[in-house]
Amino acid sequence: MRPGRDDALLTDLYQLTMAQAYLEHGLTETAEFEFFVRDLPGERNFLLAAGLEQVLDYLQGLTFDEAALEWLESTGRFSRTLLDWLAGLTFTGDVDAVPEGTAVFADEPLLRVRAPMPLAQLVESRVINLLHFQTLIASKAARIRLAARDRLLVDFGMRRAHGAEAAVLAARAAWIAGFDGTATVAAGRAFGIPIYGTMAHSFIEAHPDEVSAFRNFLVSHPGSGILLIDTWDTERAARRVVELAREDPATKAAIKGVRIDSGDLGDHARRVRRILDEGGLEGVTLFASGNLDEYAVDDLVADQAPVDGLGVGTRLDVASDAPYLDCAYKLQSYAGEPRRKRSEGKATWAGAKQVHREHHAGRMVRDRLTPADEAAPGHALLHPVLRGGEPVNERPGLAAIRDHAAAEVEALPEALRSLEPTIEPYPVLVSERLHEVTREADRLGEAPT
Amino acid sequence: MRPGRDDALLTDLYQLTMAQAYLEHGLTETAEFEFFVRDLPGERNFLLAAGLEQVLDYLQGLTFDEAALEWLESTGRFSRTLLDWLAGLTFTGDVDAVPEGTAVFADEPLLRVRAPMPLAQLVESRVINLLHFQTLIASKAARIRLAARDRLLVDFGMRRAHGAEAAVLAARAAWIAGFDGTATVAAGRAFGIPIYGTMAHSFIEAHPDEVSAFRNFLVSHPGSGILLIDTWDTERAARRVVELAREDPATKAAIKGVRIDSGDLGDHARRVRRILDEGGLEGVTLFASGNLDEYAVDDLVADQAPVDGLGVGTRLDVASDAPYLDCAYKLQSYAGEPRRKRSEGKATWAGAKQVHREHHAGRMVRDRLTPADEAAPGHALLHPVLRGGEPVNERPGLAAIRDHAAAEVEALPEALRSLEPTIEPYPVLVSERLHEVTREADRLGEAPT
Repeated sequence: MRPGRDDALLTDLYQLTMAQAYLEHGLTETAEFEFFVRDLPGERNFLLAAGLEQVLDYLQGLTFDEAALEWLESTGRFSRTLLDWLAGLTFTGDVDAVPEGTAVFADEPLLRVRAPMPLAQLVESRVINLLHFQTLIASKAARIRLAARDRLLVDFGMRRAHGAEAAVLAARAAWIAGFDGTATVAAGRAFGIPIYGTMAHSFIEAHPDEVSAFRNFLVSHPGSGILLIDTWDTERAARRVVELAREDPATKAAIKGVRIDSGDLGDHARRVRRILDEGGLEGVTLFASGNLDEYAVDDLVADQAPVDGLGVGTRLDVASDAPYLDCAYKLQSYAGEPRRKRSEGKATWAGAKQVHREHHAGRMVRDRLTPADEAAPGHALLHPVLRGGEPVNERPGLAAIRDHAAAEVEALPEALRSLEPTIEPYPVLVSERLHEVTREADRLGEAPT
Repeated sequence: MRPGRDDALLTDLYQLTMAQAYLEHGLTETAEFEFFVRDLPGERNFLLAAGLEQVLDYLQGLTFDEAALEWLESTGRFSRTLLDWLAGLTFTGDVDAVPEGTAVFADEPLLRVRAPMPLAQLVESRVINLLHFQTLIASKAARIRLAARDRLLVDFGMRRAHGAEAAVLAARAAWIAGFDGTATVAAGRAFGIPIYGTMAHSFIEAHPDEVSAFRNFLVSHPGSGILLIDTWDTERAARRVVELAREDPATKAAIKGVRIDSGDLGDHARRVRRILDEGGLEGVTLFASGNLDEYAVDDLVADQAPVDGLGVGTRLDVASDAPYLDCAYKLQSYAGEPRRKRSEGKATWAGAKQVHREHHAGRMVRDRLTPADEAAPGHALLHPVLRGGEPVNERPGLAAIRDHAAAEVEALPEALRSLEPTIEPYPVLVSERLHEVTREADRLGEAPT
């Protein structure tokens, strides 16, 4: 897996069959689609938008190579019309989007695609796949960051992330949301995210005893050795670290930290901290991991457990309490006329939209959803990103995205920064003109009987 | 994403730092590691093993290319010893594994790796990442298959799967567990899984009216047209399908089915079925989708809703009710001596193990966990797969794996085939000799204070 190298066949079959029908019947006028989240999970007071960079990599690199075309033809499902169109395909449309790291809420478009209907439709599946996942993880990670206050936070989730791409992109999304780094080496290489690591229990177990394991690791990694102390008896191991440090100053200097990965983390941390401090190892840091999420992290930090760093794995990388978002990529207009879906329980606002956000005293106070061309107080969240397939501006670097995310979380109303669900959700108003456009769409479309 | 093309850097940093320490201190004797699930989620009565083929692709293709080595060197973290070793690395170890599609339970090894310590350790992160995800999805999909009885089942989950690889491998895992196909085109190409598709609401909305949308799609896809009828009014759309079919026999023949994607699916299905039947469209199939999981499918089928096919998406592809398994890849022996972890709440059985399964009257009745070399009643689940890095046998095809999975689910005790948690879990006995080996490991290792 390398970001930016995409398979054009990573799509739902119906995107191809619909494209064929659009082409064969001349439905090639301009369409506008928007990606948005219908409802926030009950466990989320806000979302952080993420994944735009990978969407742009996908769109700007979109091409059906010879092998893909041959395979499609071999299925016998597709007409010459479709195959010829795919053979010459590149993404020539416009994209407007909310910058990565921006706080967003239900019904607010994160991305708008404007392109000929078959093209705007074709990219749906992968655009959702990319925006959904990183927004999901960044939103989870932001909560863990809030709970951890100023503690060092590292993503440990690669092994239980859902596949290779999820592992690497979860590390990216977590870093955007304020994590300090990841254990996933490929994410370090792909995105320049700082990488962190300690040691596994197997390393201890392969040695005849704990002390020789510690000693060997310190010799190989002087100054970066974080020793895992819970393989057998956590406090005894901490005392051994103290004894080891007394052997000579070089060994002492080589010890960077210790890690606890099981049991009552807060309780062990307090005992271990005392042992280390009494042994003259005040500078040795204490790292905790094991089944952590924002609630467990909050408990540790609120209890003033002396943990300097926290490794959060599975529950971050799969967003275990809310592992998906109810999101969609929906047609908003076709050939200049507003459109919307009215299926039961799934009705949406019609037409291309903009989100206007107002601040007061440094905090965001309300958003207003309007037709894209309506003026409104506050600043607009969606900005032009691609025009005719070409980038409008240079992309922001990952560090700038991360800074933006931190500022966004800082500017949230205080109640939304709590881990508990807010009683009063953030106000997203709907302008009168958007109501009108939506009524217009219903008049143009078909009304329910 | 293409299966079999892996990034050697897709690993946790500590695998590399530990490898360096192993090499520098001569800890290069043979190690045995096993992958197993510690506990089943409360919502699962059994698991279906899956993902072995991708693990073998990874191991057999493992190599650190020039660019990866240069990047590693550029970090300044690694010694010449490690970098030289990585440069010459291929997987030369032994693998024993449970065939894909086999039903497995807590504590039972799905895979054992036997290799020099640095190598056996290095592959941990990606081996877990691959076995965990497909086992997770196959186990979820098997429940949906049980609930659906003989209905056609299609994976619709690509868009909310966690990234590209998750989408493609979820389709594979679901197919193994008895799904009939997937909407994910890349999975069709990669694995030959049958692909299915209908149309989206946007297709309807782009047309001036529903009937012209239906007509255009049928002209472009005669005989495979599944018409989406819930964009505005489901029953009115069904009546329009009947009217359309009356226009001429060719149009009638072109209609393969209809799909309902919102509202009370069972209620709509009954009304729509009646409209179609009364309109002479008894042969037109009815496809339902929208927020389905095994419970919703079971409700529909138990209520005898006239649905022929079901599309299951997000809740399958992220295993939404239990989005991860508590699994591990643990050191079992080093240099011929048994090893185990004894951290609080995470103790395991020591030494290389085998699972023996007994059947009675076509049903599995009990498993027995033993040291790998102990004879026991029943048949052994783990088989040699690689020796010295070379395959022992030809790999089974995906169809054979799928047949095996179906036979395994058929052979489960009846109580385990229920969607409800069993009161009495499947019996996994532990042999007396395995108790002895584990005591031996504790004697050789360190005892808690």
